[in-house]
Amino acid sequence: MSFPAATPPSRLLMGPGPSQIHPQVLSALAAPTVGHLDPVFLRIMDELQSMLREVFGTTNPMTMAVSGTGSAGMETCVVNLVEPGDRVLCCVNGVFGGRMAEVAERAGAEVTRIERPFGEVFTAEEVREAVQRVRPKITGIVHAETSTGAWQPLQEISDVVHEADSLLLVDCVTSLGGVPVEVDKLGIDAAYSGTQKCLSCPPGLAPVTFGPRALEVMDRRTHKVCSWYLDIGLLRNYWGSNRAYHHTAPINMNYALHEALRLVLDEGLEQRYARHALHHRALRAGLAAMGIQYSGNPQYCLPMLNSVLIPEGADDAQVRSQLLQEFGIEIGGGLGPMKGRVWRIGLMGETARSSNVLLFLSALQQCLLRQGISLPAASATAAASVIYLES
Amino acid sequence: MSFPAATPPSRLLMGPGPSQIHPQVLSALAAPTVGHLDPVFLRIMDELQSMLREVFGTTNPMTMAVSGTGSAGMETCVVNLVEPGDRVLCCVNGVFGGRMAEVAERAGAEVTRIERPFGEVFTAEEVREAVQRVRPKITGIVHAETSTGAWQPLQEISDVVHEADSLLLVDCVTSLGGVPVEVDKLGIDAAYSGTQKCLSCPPGLAPVTFGPRALEVMDRRTHKVCSWYLDIGLLRNYWGSNRAYHHTAPINMNYALHEALRLVLDEGLEQRYARHALHHRALRAGLAAMGIQYSGNPQYCLPMLNSVLIPEGADDAQVRSQLLQEFGIEIGGGLGPMKGRVWRIGLMGETARSSNVLLFLSALQQCLLRQGISLPAASATAAASVIYLES
Repeated sequence: MSFPAATPPSRLLMGPGPSQIHPQVLSALAAPTVGHLDPVFLRIMDELQSMLREVFGTTNPMTMAVSGTGSAGMETCVVNLVEPGDRVLCCVNGVFGGRMAEVAERAGAEVTRIERPFGEVFTAEEVREAVQRVRPKITGIVHAETSTGAWQPLQEISDVVHEADSLLLVDCVTSLGGVPVEVDKLGIDAAYSGTQKCLSCPPGLAPVTFGPRALEVMDRRTHKVCSWYLDIGLLRNYWGSNRAYHHTAPINMNYALHEALRLVLDEGLEQRYARHALHHRALRAGLAAMGIQYSGNPQYCLPMLNSVLIPEGADDAQVRSQLLQEFGIEIGGGLGPMKGRVWRIGLMGETARSSNVLLFLSALQQCLLRQGISLPAASATAAASVIYLES
Repeated sequence: MSFPAATPPSRLLMGPGPSQIHPQVLSALAAPTVGHLDPVFLRIMDELQSMLREVFGTTNPMTMAVSGTGSAGMETCVVNLVEPGDRVLCCVNGVFGGRMAEVAERAGAEVTRIERPFGEVFTAEEVREAVQRVRPKITGIVHAETSTGAWQPLQEISDVVHEADSLLLVDCVTSLGGVPVEVDKLGIDAAYSGTQKCLSCPPGLAPVTFGPRALEVMDRRTHKVCSWYLDIGLLRNYWGSNRAYHHTAPINMNYALHEALRLVLDEGLEQRYARHALHHRALRAGLAAMGIQYSGNPQYCLPMLNSVLIPEGADDAQVRSQLLQEFGIEIGGGLGPMKGRVWRIGLMGETARSSNVLLFLSALQQCLLRQGISLPAASATAAASVIYLES
């Protein structure tokens, strides 16, 4: 009782991730599997760690790829830093801030949430007030909220968190590789990401990094980490110089991430950030020409995750289904309270290319017109093209 | 600061996993990534679940692939079944039984270990005595101990565990796809496996299955599962009919597992088990001709994991390194107390082929002769060939 071979189609992935994958990354994924203690693989791990440090903007030795997806990276950071009864402050302005709080509670933390409406960001003052009131061991915040497209400034918040002698834990799932994530400069103590966003690698690994203060806290633990699989104390023996067996690493996924990081660094981080910004401006201009508005505070919109209000009269599911079935384009729907209210349009990594932006704008226009939505006369693609011509 | 592209060599993987990967599986891995809620991917998930049920020998609806490696599968089963203070009985006769106990303790269980020497198996009587004394909520045992090559009979043990009203949790990491794993027939309540053993897929996913009694226990939980990432209550909404977003599944790894399962079922389970048994007999005959002995009880030796005593005078590390560097063959060293005492020779999935057995025997003979080890005059490959000629 077997099935025919699966033949997944080529999609244009313009949702909240996974993003487009470079053909070299797919080729790397299919390279011959070697053993997890093979000297060849150990060298790949070394290089991968070195490239990850560069992208994270850190010299942290404990920078590695967790053998799970972004949420496993979140859980790794939380369960290794939290001991039962620890106070944790979570800044919640979207689904992923809420998830961090949930993960911390399950790890036994006494969690205090501060909240901002979806699409807004936190001010340093708000965080200062909370850390001084709560005196948390850890303060968690999301750099790039995938559910809202909000881009959280971090420098001042890092300062107030450290003034209160708290550790700063940052969700960089969607930001890493798309906007600067300067772990050392900002004083971030622990951060996690995913491979399927701006690194343009298939999902399956979670880059994480831990600074010296975070390692100190782990070294002083009196309880074992509740997860054996994600225990950094054990993982350090495999990803550190010992290279002692812990679990069998996802070999081929690590090949793919190695190749994806090579492409990121070959492009250059500054150039990559500029490319994300450019295509965001073009997309925004094109959407504006169609009368489509962003859902969040325009001052804090991420370039790679564009959360826009669904135009009145448009059928959410039908538009997304038409985009997928007729044009092969995937965009994301709203998450949580944003369900049915927004579309999330990703411009992550390889997806951030002008041909993708122009095709998407044309396709969306056609879908909306077909639903009888009246659009402004201005051409969306012409508006986007103006941005490209000016760049 | 990038690096040259990684170019992993073709190895012959004859260790304790990963095993050889069929080219079709590597091709599937490199198919275009689609979204985790794409209808195409949802169909792949459905088919994958259906094929996994077949290989596990179960009709359990809750049969799926956890987004992590085999140890994440172990942790998934344990943390979903265990609540703080629950009594768990772990049968420890190798590294992986010990790991299960460790994972259960971290999940808050009150763990009782019963032990057998490495390489031995448990009798139903031993387990009966323990379950009646401990009255555990869960009894965990390893079907195929990857650290020793011991093959644990399960039918009678399942009976005594259920008589004591305990749930039977079985580690099938190395057995699945290589020897029969009859979940329903044996009454196994929960089982986990890995992809990189007898399924011959790269590492990165962990097949798991939960029977009705296990689901009931989960439904009656009063504490949240300590892991959010591995919470079956949440995962059921994604792998069940709701298909609600939980985390971004490792899309391409699921393609690969889909293809690997297709190959398993196209070959036929009985034929596959017979193939593993045949090549095991040939390897055993060849090793015997060289005077090499198995480390465990000969009555309970697994076909796919051959743990043999390192011949006196042979340098463990040097032989393994020569096999790897000169012949491209990986075998495994000993784990835990077996380190330096045994080699672990895998015949898992695609690795179980006569050309691999014959090449390995010749290569090992050469390595040992080069170290000045005196070997019996009989030819190892001739002894293996006799088995093939008789089959």
